[in-house]
Amino acid sequence: FNTVRLAEFAWGLLEPEPDRCDFAWLDRAVDVLNAHGLRVVLSTPTAAPPPWLLAAHPDIAQVDEQGRRVGPGTRREACANHPVYQERSRRIVEQMAAHYGHHPGVIGWQTDNEFGCHDSARCYCPHCQAAFRAWLQEKFTHVDTLNRAWGGAFWGEVYTSWEEIPLPTRSRAQRNPSHLLDFQRFSSDVWRRYHAQQIAILRRRCPNHFVTHNLMGFFPDLNAYHLCEGLDFVSWDNYHYFGATPATVAASHDHMRGVLRRNFWVMEQQAGQINWSVYNPAPPPNFVRLKTYQAIAHGGDGVIYFRWRQARAGSEQYHSGLLDHAGRTTAGYEEARQIGAELQRLAPMLAGTAPRPKVAILLDYDSRWVLEEQPHNQLLRMNQPPDFVLPHPVLLMDREDEPDERFMTGRAWLAWQFLAPYIALWEDNIPADIVAPEADLTGYRVVLAPFLNLLRPAVVSNLRRFVQAGGALILGPRSGLKDEHNRLFTTPQPGPLTELTGSTVRFFDSLSPERSNELRWQESVTRMGRVSPVGFWAEVL
Amino acid sequence: FNTVRLAEFAWGLLEPEPDRCDFAWLDRAVDVLNAHGLRVVLSTPTAAPPPWLLAAHPDIAQVDEQGRRVGPGTRREACANHPVYQERSRRIVEQMAAHYGHHPGVIGWQTDNEFGCHDSARCYCPHCQAAFRAWLQEKFTHVDTLNRAWGGAFWGEVYTSWEEIPLPTRSRAQRNPSHLLDFQRFSSDVWRRYHAQQIAILRRRCPNHFVTHNLMGFFPDLNAYHLCEGLDFVSWDNYHYFGATPATVAASHDHMRGVLRRNFWVMEQQAGQINWSVYNPAPPPNFVRLKTYQAIAHGGDGVIYFRWRQARAGSEQYHSGLLDHAGRTTAGYEEARQIGAELQRLAPMLAGTAPRPKVAILLDYDSRWVLEEQPHNQLLRMNQPPDFVLPHPVLLMDREDEPDERFMTGRAWLAWQFLAPYIALWEDNIPADIVAPEADLTGYRVVLAPFLNLLRPAVVSNLRRFVQAGGALILGPRSGLKDEHNRLFTTPQPGPLTELTGSTVRFFDSLSPERSNELRWQESVTRMGRVSPVGFWAEVL
Amino acid sequence: FNTVRLAEFAWGLLEPEPDRCDFAWLDRAVDVLNAHGLRVVLSTPTAAPPPWLLAAHPDIAQVDEQGRRVGPGTRREACANHPVYQERSRRIVEQMAAHYGHHPGVIGWQTDNEFGCHDSARCYCPHCQAAFRAWLQEKFTHVDTLNRAWGGAFWGEVYTSWEEIPLPTRSRAQRNPSHLLDFQRFSSDVWRRYHAQQIAILRRRCPNHFVTHNLMGFFPDLNAYHLCEGLDFVSWDNYHYFGATPATVAASHDHMRGVLRRNFWVMEQQAGQINWSVYNPAPPPNFVRLKTYQAIAHGGDGVIYFRWRQARAGSEQYHSGLLDHAGRTTAGYEEARQIGAELQRLAPMLAGTAPRPKVAILLDYDSRWVLEEQPHNQLLRMNQPPDFVLPHPVLLMDREDEPDERFMTGRAWLAWQFLAPYIALWEDNIPADIVAPEADLTGYRVVLAPFLNLLRPAVVSNLRRFVQAGGALILGPRSGLKDEHNRLFTTPQPGPLTELTGSTVRFFDSLSPERSNELRWQESVTRMGRVSPVGFWAEVL
Ligand SMILES: [Zn+2]
Ligand SMILES: [Zn+2]
Ligand SMILES: [Zn+2]
Repeated sequence: FNTVRLAEFAWGLLEPEPDRCDFAWLDRAVDVLNAHGLRVVLSTPTAAPPPWLLAAHPDIAQVDEQGRRVGPGTRREACANHPVYQERSRRIVEQMAAHYGHHPGVIGWQTDNEFGCHDSARCYCPHCQAAFRAWLQEKFTHVDTLNRAWGGAFWGEVYTSWEEIPLPTRSRAQRNPSHLLDFQRFSSDVWRRYHAQQIAILRRRCPNHFVTHNLMGFFPDLNAYHLCEGLDFVSWDNYHYFGATPATVAASHDHMRGVLRRNFWVMEQQAGQINWSVYNPAPPPNFVRLKTYQAIAHGGDGVIYFRWRQARAGSEQYHSGLLDHAGRTTAGYEEARQIGAELQRLAPMLAGTAPRPKVAILLDYDSRWVLEEQPHNQLLRMNQPPDFVLPHPVLLMDREDEPDERFMTGRAWLAWQFLAPYIALWEDNIPADIVAPEADLTGYRVVLAPFLNLLRPAVVSNLRRFVQAGGALILGPRSGLKDEHNRLFTTPQPGPLTELTGSTVRFFDSLSPERSNELRWQESVTRMGRVSPVGFWAEVL
Repeated sequence: FNTVRLAEFAWGLLEPEPDRCDFAWLDRAVDVLNAHGLRVVLSTPTAAPPPWLLAAHPDIAQVDEQGRRVGPGTRREACANHPVYQERSRRIVEQMAAHYGHHPGVIGWQTDNEFGCHDSARCYCPHCQAAFRAWLQEKFTHVDTLNRAWGGAFWGEVYTSWEEIPLPTRSRAQRNPSHLLDFQRFSSDVWRRYHAQQIAILRRRCPNHFVTHNLMGFFPDLNAYHLCEGLDFVSWDNYHYFGATPATVAASHDHMRGVLRRNFWVMEQQAGQINWSVYNPAPPPNFVRLKTYQAIAHGGDGVIYFRWRQARAGSEQYHSGLLDHAGRTTAGYEEARQIGAELQRLAPMLAGTAPRPKVAILLDYDSRWVLEEQPHNQLLRMNQPPDFVLPHPVLLMDREDEPDERFMTGRAWLAWQFLAPYIALWEDNIPADIVAPEADLTGYRVVLAPFLNLLRPAVVSNLRRFVQAGGALILGPRSGLKDEHNRLFTTPQPGPLTELTGSTVRFFDSLSPERSNELRWQESVTRMGRVSPVGFWAEVL
Repeated sequence: FNTVRLAEFAWGLLEPEPDRCDFAWLDRAVDVLNAHGLRVVLSTPTAAPPPWLLAAHPDIAQVDEQGRRVGPGTRREACANHPVYQERSRRIVEQMAAHYGHHPGVIGWQTDNEFGCHDSARCYCPHCQAAFRAWLQEKFTHVDTLNRAWGGAFWGEVYTSWEEIPLPTRSRAQRNPSHLLDFQRFSSDVWRRYHAQQIAILRRRCPNHFVTHNLMGFFPDLNAYHLCEGLDFVSWDNYHYFGATPATVAASHDHMRGVLRRNFWVMEQQAGQINWSVYNPAPPPNFVRLKTYQAIAHGGDGVIYFRWRQARAGSEQYHSGLLDHAGRTTAGYEEARQIGAELQRLAPMLAGTAPRPKVAILLDYDSRWVLEEQPHNQLLRMNQPPDFVLPHPVLLMDREDEPDERFMTGRAWLAWQFLAPYIALWEDNIPADIVAPEADLTGYRVVLAPFLNLLRPAVVSNLRRFVQAGGALILGPRSGLKDEHNRLFTTPQPGPLTELTGSTVRFFDSLSPERSNELRWQESVTRMGRVSPVGFWAEVL
């Protein structure tokens, strides 16, 4: 152990009353740790605004899609568009950064904590309503331009002023998909801007510290590429929850590495049971070691275990630590100690290394959002399990080795559609980067686009460049159907990529589960042979 | 093709600003269509109030049963009791009717669009609260009369003034069924009155045009017999969604024909995939032809395909058209063209024909509402699937030939109880009318009343007349239990029908699924033999 | 029949207008009953405030966890912290008690009706917010004491004034468990105090009448031991709903007897079908007799059948009575008459008897609440079924003889964990008391504590006394993990009970369903042999 993260929700302790900061306790903690040779990563504490702030401004709490005020008093309830929350956030970050900016024992910062967690990415309060209209005005300039881009004419959604545009709250009929997509982009942008303010303060006050943020792997609600602009590197929190498999975790590492195309940290690595999944078994022997080496193999430059000692109180009581509630060491502690010793020998060999795959997989947030909203087949959900397909999720556990077929078909089109090719590569030890569709593709021999449903102009030209330079591009189903405004192209699918494919889709079909089939891969393709389920969707060329 | 429907949600385009109407674009469309020999059916656009109206009067949006304001910006969100919405509706209908009332290329009108769709039949806003109290006062005159009719004494629901009567919003305990029934009748009546205003305007302004409305088959929330008073004929929108079968569609046609006891139109006939069901397969070959001929065989005098070209934008993007998003013709287009040619030959034989069945099945809305609210067995739901009985709805698809047993037992008591006898007749090619219990039953030899739970006095005398004239009346279970106020009769079931049946029910039973059984029909009854599931309910004579 | 209960929701009839009481109709009813030799138990009618009261004070209606006002107009909607409801409740109870306090035909009172029913135990309105803060202030005196007890530091939940403490409304992240526990204790205490006011009035006005309340068996939301302080005896309402078995009913009787450690009444004994379960079959022959004798065998001193005649109107229309809706006698009536005759012979033998078991089972409400909130395994729910484990509840019915395995594992950790040992005893005819953990344990040879997760200091000393006096104490899993503030002990499990067990838990595990096992009891332990499912949770010593 050589690094400790501190203070991620400590606003209430650091600023116990408005404008009165108390860093004494944290100074002491940092000093003690430094004295024992441990370096400190500090977090800005803005994920948990203090009780006095919400009591004084109850409307800092977000409003959900149904118009209900979110209950205050836990974390992540604050609206990033509320001016007082913004101002108070800036102030506490300034204060912390000023205090620790030149502290020799602090090496870097984690901004906030898990942006978007607990369904907090989108808020429907009056501040957000005003901000959304301003964002749209900045994007479209004229309301008629918006009307054309959104194409709401059929249901008479023709706006004559910005003030008429509603938030896409819960409605009776399905919302206009263009309206929804822009709201998701807006919401993602709100957090990007909120984040950028913190980064700017830290850069100014702490020129020698790194700045990172702890993401949540394949979390869908925020565009990770945008959110992480300006960070030194990406971190993420690696929990093996219900449904995770070694391959999904591998893919998460590769996505995290692909966000900035740089090595990453695991800011929270579970070292025992967690407390928030369907059930939370104690990991098997060597789990912590295995997880740590997997992270390193995928480009992890740092791994911090969460947490030191099991919390005695609060909602994470049942979350394990390196020490348990009674202060006893746990199995995870012993494994972490062993790793520490092993890494001392390995460090010289690992230093400065990074994966350099020849294959890239494109992960596009617009397309995720668009397909999640309009699967055209309720069995093809991007993120959420349709209950009726998974009556027995309990049967899906303990299948660490491969995604279960039912899991694939039900819970996650993302899993099936996106992870299936990843897993095929992973099983043959072919490393892959998972990157944005606008990323520089130079150097890759193969680029996979498993679900590039929506094409922004820059993506089209990027792929054209790649193919024209001799690269092999493999498109998955539903590619090239939507333009940047989430309208259907008026040309056959794959729209502007047709010049690259040379063929078009005659029509698509949304299939019943009884019309599923199996795809058998030849031995020569995958060494182990493999049967993949296919179904739910078909495209006829 | 000889007819086109236009403008069903075009309020925002027709009245882009308050009181400034713009008919130029629609004039042009009508003219172009007329120039090519196509006649036009216009819709009043009131199902989609324009953004400026909702922005100026946010409380036009309905309030749901939980007290939540419905999000504006799609369609069907308006409260029919809001005075401004009423006034603005009248005005735009007046304007359109005045403009097109004597247009030679317009042949008729569709009022609004699918009243009640998207769960919009009932609203719980203050305007509705006041209107409900006024409706009750008109019905009962004295509040004591209401107290007696509703029988709320046991829980102390004794009102001393109209102002004390709440809307039946979401409550902790189950609401008084008499209160609920009158609210459902009131809500249905609200839309009948709203509709009647439009019909009156169109009659006055457009004496040579027909007036119709597009219903949704067996849609439960509005009393179709009342809603369609004053129309020339009924139309309906025929979509083959998840769970539909040829027999359920046949029954829908017969119900639609039975509403006014007159031939009908199919105002929207799908010509390919839809976008809103569980999944949305491309129909098999000849589907569009088959559907069209089925409509004609059941008394359909007009069939309009929805829609001409797949919408590029908006929430119905994935809904197919005769042309696809890229402007290419679809399989549905080819079939529709073939039908057009065939019908030219068939038209002389079909003209003026109508089905004249000897069997009637009674469909009573009061009884639907009452049984849906108080099934006394959660497996007997009229309209909504109880999840726990249908964990695998996906297994139920692609069973075009007959209602699946699990579907029957779970999703729809209506299906089992109401459709089972219909299907038995349908399989033997015995046509049936589906009509109101007060309908003139002269000329029928057999009348089936599958679930006539509630008996209004006029229904009792109607059935007495029919039986005394020698007709055969077959009552299903749960018949004759409730009086017009939704109270239990104080005489044994079937209450006032006992003089016709000559026997009474000793007691009824609500059975567990394990106590289900099978009914085997003799060959002589149905040519094909048949096994029907029976269970969930029993009555001992 | 010798006793009748009356007036449990009759506020609207007894006080038809504010401050004008009308007891004439009730006088007449009591007189007629007395004239036929029947004694009367009266209920205070406060469970159903009259319409005029809610119309004048709409904010008497509770607010739910999501901030939604509960719809008025049924029953149990009133907030016990609303000053007007409190005042009006006191007044009507005073009036009734003054009127009937010395009536010779009235023998006793039932307070209110089924406190907590319809999810009414907890309210989130502004009155409750203020009352909760006052309750906390009384408990902790200083807000810093609360901060330490709740341990909210990790998420910065550090309060500087009572006004900052929110109600634990629906929040994004899981609430602090200490906050939640105190809110549940507070809510239970609110109803205890409300109840105490009624008891005090009745004691003062009706010195010769007994006072009781009708509980609902294992109902979880209110602490029955506290709620029933000051009653003469406990009553309860015995309905055989979906999932009940003879053993669960036996356990309910024993819990009801254990609340005050005194014989009890069954205030409502179903005599036929009920109307509110999943389905509601007519009971088999001799059901009513069997239920009545079971009650007597467990210490029931009175059994009243609900209800005399099936209600013609209102939401309980489908609930059976001794007479049906048409006034005919039912099977239940005949059985009740037979019992009446039999009891005349048996009464001399039964008079003054009471069960005196040598085994006690501890049922602790704090532990129920704590485990329900933090099962750490979603398959271990105390009260509510996790849908995904019970896709086929319909398969579980008609298993009167033993709790079904799937039922056990899914619906109710309470059932499995708490009832499993009870059932083992029950099958061997070993009677047991079900009592509070603070109850005097003198005289018991064995005490079972199936899930004593939270230990208050008084419980620890009580158990210490019992064991030191030679008693055998059997602890179930999860025992001794939490202190009185719902924090983890800083000593190994079972915390302060370790001195009694002599061993500690090394770690616990939350298991997947695939890691379940079977426990086979030897013949010598249970005469019949028995296989119990084990799983979901493990503790390694
Ligand atoms: Zn907001
Ligand atoms: Zn309304
Ligand atoms: Zn309250």
